[in-house]
Amino acid sequence: MNIGILGAGQLGRMLALAGYPLGCSFRFFDPTPPSAVSAVAPHMCEHYSNTEALDSFIKGLDAVTYEFENVPVEAAEYVASRVALQPGIEALRVAQDRFAERECFRKLGIPVVDSIELPAVQANESHKGIVSKFGVPCVLKARRLGYDGKGQAVVRSEDKILEALSTLKGQDVIVERLVEFTRELSIIAVRGRSGDPKFYPLIENVHHQGILRTSRCPANRVGESLQQEAEDFATRVLAHFSYVGVLTIELFEVNGKLVANEMAPRVHNSGHFSIEGSETSQFENHIRAVMGMPLGSTRPKGSSLMVNLIGVRPDAKKLLAMPQVHFHWYGKAPREGRKVGHVTAVFKGSEERDSKAQEVLACARGT
Amino acid sequence: MNIGILGAGQLGRMLALAGYPLGCSFRFFDPTPPSAVSAVAPHMCEHYSNTEALDSFIKGLDAVTYEFENVPVEAAEYVASRVALQPGIEALRVAQDRFAERECFRKLGIPVVDSIELPAVQANESHKGIVSKFGVPCVLKARRLGYDGKGQAVVRSEDKILEALSTLKGQDVIVERLVEFTRELSIIAVRGRSGDPKFYPLIENVHHQGILRTSRCPANRVGESLQQEAEDFATRVLAHFSYVGVLTIELFEVNGKLVANEMAPRVHNSGHFSIEGSETSQFENHIRAVMGMPLGSTRPKGSSLMVNLIGVRPDAKKLLAMPQVHFHWYGKAPREGRKVGHVTAVFKGSEERDSKAQEVLACARGT
Repeated sequence: MNIGILGAGQLGRMLALAGYPLGCSFRFFDPTPPSAVSAVAPHMCEHYSNTEALDSFIKGLDAVTYEFENVPVEAAEYVASRVALQPGIEALRVAQDRFAERECFRKLGIPVVDSIELPAVQANESHKGIVSKFGVPCVLKARRLGYDGKGQAVVRSEDKILEALSTLKGQDVIVERLVEFTRELSIIAVRGRSGDPKFYPLIENVHHQGILRTSRCPANRVGESLQQEAEDFATRVLAHFSYVGVLTIELFEVNGKLVANEMAPRVHNSGHFSIEGSETSQFENHIRAVMGMPLGSTRPKGSSLMVNLIGVRPDAKKLLAMPQVHFHWYGKAPREGRKVGHVTAVFKGSEERDSKAQEVLACARGT
Repeated sequence: MNIGILGAGQLGRMLALAGYPLGCSFRFFDPTPPSAVSAVAPHMCEHYSNTEALDSFIKGLDAVTYEFENVPVEAAEYVASRVALQPGIEALRVAQDRFAERECFRKLGIPVVDSIELPAVQANESHKGIVSKFGVPCVLKARRLGYDGKGQAVVRSEDKILEALSTLKGQDVIVERLVEFTRELSIIAVRGRSGDPKFYPLIENVHHQGILRTSRCPANRVGESLQQEAEDFATRVLAHFSYVGVLTIELFEVNGKLVANEMAPRVHNSGHFSIEGSETSQFENHIRAVMGMPLGSTRPKGSSLMVNLIGVRPDAKKLLAMPQVHFHWYGKAPREGRKVGHVTAVFKGSEERDSKAQEVLACARGT
């Protein structure tokens, strides 16, 4: 099966590596060179608005998917009118817009953080008034194109409102209550064409400066009801979009209950552990779904710790000398704040994982 | 790290897929198009005697390895004089020649089957006399270029000697006692640059018409002493060649003892199970060795059954619907006797594996 992927980052790279054993071929489309996929598959480096290039991209493809939720909807629509695109356009459209995403969650009865909309924000007194009325501490988030903490500003006191507004000047914004969460979790779900979804166990995530640093799966202290709650949320979203593929919902745990933060209509950084830590990885399951194949088991093979490698290349020799460690390098040039690889260590149980975590972290960070 | 691979079959394909996560790039050299690697890496399709093409192949490479033991030694020597080639030339040379291989095993004190040499065989009466004197039943094997049962003829009665000789006309041959073995096993070993070898558990193999059909790892009924015996054999061969990479020795079990049949200076079909069935696959460990990285754990993750897909494409949907099954398709056109994919099923224990084996086999063979 020939599969085209819109976007050409490490998520796409890992999708291709998971799909090759199944006999698939891959081709990527993305305007930014050089890419994390260059070494593993052909990358057509053209603008999304270039329909001639899109025509040539989709020629001979059996299916198209995306690995990046900011693919322009128009380009996705153009592709979808010519070849099967999964997940569908609506999921993409909603996931691109934090406001639409909140509305969608609300409509589906999924708890979200209080928020209001602030269209085309200007750093002036009237906007300051609205934010002030909403109350601090709060977070301003660009409605569109935010990722890895970009397009966000936390406002902790009223006198900082104008300053925060000015960083998002000219963009549509949502103003959101700053949540006092116990921890951040994510649920990764996958749905095939036949509709029967599967779920990975809840993942516990730690972010720093808006960038995911570590994930643990299964998360500690997750009762059946918390897992069930997360699966219920995901089930509603999957059904709503007649979704095919992997869907991720980022969640906050607040007073023992879950609140949805955002969704990603794609494989997700918090699911990288699944390459070695699950019977079937999120990448393989996404490809299986797109191919119309039965989904594989999402059962964990142990207790996994995933550490993102950000901005620097660690000493691979030291890392690989640790028996539980699997090293992933994306072939990108290291620069500050850039995800250039990750490390997954799989242990028999969560106690062993948590006792060895510092050692893995120190080795991954070269400290 | 940029790695070049001589040969372009499924072993090369799986080497590349194992090496990409480590950040390696791959390039293949082999005269036969189209190849199993075409979808996953650039393939330079030129004759091994074309040194200009070899020059352009090795340009920018950090290391070269091979995935096929019949790469002409001259080409390997040409490459090795310009860039690090692992495993080395001597292992390649010996593995290409069944007679030299036997001599090598004998010299290292590794038991082999009785055999004699029969240079440039003619199907005439004098050669018939030699074979007759050696005794039947016996096997005639071409010294060179045999694989998957090709270049072999079993002689069960004296009146069939001439007929058997005629099938190997003009080739150097060894005549070998037909072994009454209990079963066929293989040991896969890997040695890094620092020299400390690691071993996978003994694998039990079933061949039919000279082609490997199934492998089980760990093999049943393997005591510590049998495993130790196999590891001792491999250790001697590895040390003899100052070997770097994966080495496979095919063995017969005869009256509870091991007899070496042949060696392959490369990753091996009987080790495919290790992709899902071992903590580190044979492919990743070979790449780690070639890169000069520490080797990964060879510990089994369960009890694996590997079934080769030969000549036909099975119903992937049915296979993938079995929860323990992993499907591998090499992207080759099916034709009779050709290995076009494999299936690995990993179970918690060997009893479960053996009780489910028929079901997996039936599904893989579409029967």
